[in-house]
Amino acid sequence: MAAMSERALIGWIRSRIGRRGGRIVVDSGDDAAVLRFGRRQILFKTDGVIDGVHFDSATARPEEIGHKAVARCLSDLAAMAGVPGFAVAALMIPRNAREQYVRRVIEGMERTASAFGAAIVGGDISSHPGRLAITVAMLGETQGWSPVRRSGARLGDVFAVTGKLGGSILGKHLRFVPRVREALELRRRFDLHAMIDISDGLLVDLDRLCRESGVGAVLEESSIPISPAARRLARRDRRSPLEHALGDGEDYELLFALPADQSSRLERSGLGRVVGEAAAMEGIYLRRRDGRLEERTAEGWEHRWGR
Amino acid sequence: MAAMSERALIGWIRSRIGRRGGRIVVDSGDDAAVLRFGRRQILFKTDGVIDGVHFDSATARPEEIGHKAVARCLSDLAAMAGVPGFAVAALMIPRNAREQYVRRVIEGMERTASAFGAAIVGGDISSHPGRLAITVAMLGETQGWSPVRRSGARLGDVFAVTGKLGGSILGKHLRFVPRVREALELRRRFDLHAMIDISDGLLVDLDRLCRESGVGAVLEESSIPISPAARRLARRDRRSPLEHALGDGEDYELLFALPADQSSRLERSGLGRVVGEAAAMEGIYLRRRDGRLEERTAEGWEHRWGR
Repeated sequence: MAAMSERALIGWIRSRIGRRGGRIVVDSGDDAAVLRFGRRQILFKTDGVIDGVHFDSATARPEEIGHKAVARCLSDLAAMAGVPGFAVAALMIPRNAREQYVRRVIEGMERTASAFGAAIVGGDISSHPGRLAITVAMLGETQGWSPVRRSGARLGDVFAVTGKLGGSILGKHLRFVPRVREALELRRRFDLHAMIDISDGLLVDLDRLCRESGVGAVLEESSIPISPAARRLARRDRRSPLEHALGDGEDYELLFALPADQSSRLERSGLGRVVGEAAAMEGIYLRRRDGRLEERTAEGWEHRWGR
Repeated sequence: MAAMSERALIGWIRSRIGRRGGRIVVDSGDDAAVLRFGRRQILFKTDGVIDGVHFDSATARPEEIGHKAVARCLSDLAAMAGVPGFAVAALMIPRNAREQYVRRVIEGMERTASAFGAAIVGGDISSHPGRLAITVAMLGETQGWSPVRRSGARLGDVFAVTGKLGGSILGKHLRFVPRVREALELRRRFDLHAMIDISDGLLVDLDRLCRESGVGAVLEESSIPISPAARRLARRDRRSPLEHALGDGEDYELLFALPADQSSRLERSGLGRVVGEAAAMEGIYLRRRDGRLEERTAEGWEHRWGR
C-alpha cells in the first residue's frame, strides 16, 4: 500500500476515536496519545521496525536493531516532553534465527530503554515464516506539566531544531540518541508552544506541526543545520546537502516552536538552532539566500514564487 | 526458532527485569505486567498475531483477524481480573493489500475493543514485503482490587474453567469471546486465588499456573468440559475428544483456582466448572475414569503410574 494510503488510513482511524468521557486528552494524531488516570496524565505510544523497511538485517548489528526499535518510541515521548516509564515489546522472529542473535537484539533494546529510564516489563515472542520485526509500546508521564503537543505553534513563534539534519541513512538511523533529556531541558528553560520529532524529514514534519497549529512557516536556507552525513550523501547522488537536510527522514531530532524573543537565549544555550518562523500564510516556504521565497509544502515542491 | 527456545528466551528476559523501585508490581511472567502509578495499579500487555501463524488470511475474514488481535490482549487482562482501558496497535501490511481490506481489519479491532470498554488511542501502519501482522498493546486497571495472579493457588483449592475446551482451530480461535465480564463477575463473587487464560492448552497453562504457585494438580477425566468442536475434530484425526480438550490451544477460556468449599456455589452459578484440585506432589496428573493416575506434566506425557 502506498504512503498516501497509509496517511489516509491514519486520518480515517483518527476520525473514529471518540473522546471517551474526557479520559483521552490527546489522540493518535500527536506523537503519543495522552490519557488521564486520576490526576495523572499518561503518554502511550506504539511503533514498529521491520527488516527490509526500517533496517537491513544484512548490515545492521542486532544490538542496533534493538536500539532503534526502542529509541523510536523514546523519541516520540521526547517530542511531548514526556518521561519514559515502561515498555512492552513484541518480537516476530524468523524461523531460522539463532537464539544468540535474538538475545543480542533484546540486549540492545534493554540497554537503550534502561539508559533513558524505561523498564521493559513484558513481551511476546513469535517465530514466523517472515523477517524480523519488533513492535514496542511505551508508557511515559509528564510529572505535573502538560505534554507539549503539535498544535500550539502561533504567529510570533520561531521554529528551532536540535542537532544537524540529513543523511541519517548512512548510519545515524541505527544509532541516534533519542532527545529525551534535551526535551526535558528545553521544556524547563523555554516556553515550548509545540514540538514534534523529525522522523519523516524536516519539511514533512514541519508541515504536520503547522497544519495542527493552523499556521504556515518560512524556513531560512542559511539557518538549516546540515549534517556531515548530508554532505557525504550529496557527493554520491544528485541532491544537494541542503535538500538532504530538508527532506531526509529518520533524524529523530526535535523540531519545536517557541516565542521569537527567546531565540537568542535558545541559541546561547546550545540546545537548539532557530531555522525559521511561523507565518500567516498557509504552507511551508524556504527563503533562499538570494531572498526568493520557494514553496516547499509537502507534495507541493514544484510550485515556486519569485519575489 | 523452536518453541522451546522461545520459552527459554522469555525466562531469560524475565530474569533480567528488575523491580525498579517497587513500581513494577508484577512482571512479564504473568498474563500482564502490573505497574504502580501513584495509588493506581495499571495492567500493561502486548500480544501479536501473524498471518500464517495465528490466522490464515486465505480463509479468515478481515474483521475476524482484527477481532483476534484485540481479543487476545483482552483475554490476558481478563485473566488478571482487569478492566480494559486503552489500546494502541501496530499494523504491518503487505505492500499489495487493498485499503478496503485494511479498513475491515481495523473495524474488527475497533468493534471488539469498544465492546469490552477499550478505546484504540493510537497506532502505527507500515507497508512491508511480508504478510499481515498486528501487534496490540493494552492498558487496564483493577479499580481498587488486586490483580489476580498466576501464583496464588494453594493446597485446598480446586481448579475450574469457563466454557468448553478443544477444537478451537475449527473456528473459535477467530471468534472467541474474551472472558472479561466473566472474570470480573468471578472476582466479585468468589475468592479467586490464581487465574490464567488458556491460550496454549489446558495442560500447558495449568502447568504454568501450578509452577508459579508451587503446587501440583490432579485433573478429573470425567470433569473436563469437552466442546462439540473437539468431538468434531476427533472424528477427523486419531486423537480423542478428551485429548483435544486437554491439549488444544487458543480456547481463551479462564482457568482459575478457588477454595474447594466454593466449588458447589461456583457450579450453581454457571460461571465455571471444577476440573480438578491442587495437590502436594509436583506436576500435572489426570485421574482416569478407572482411577488410574497418569502424569501429564508438559513435556512429561509418556510417564504413567498405575494405581
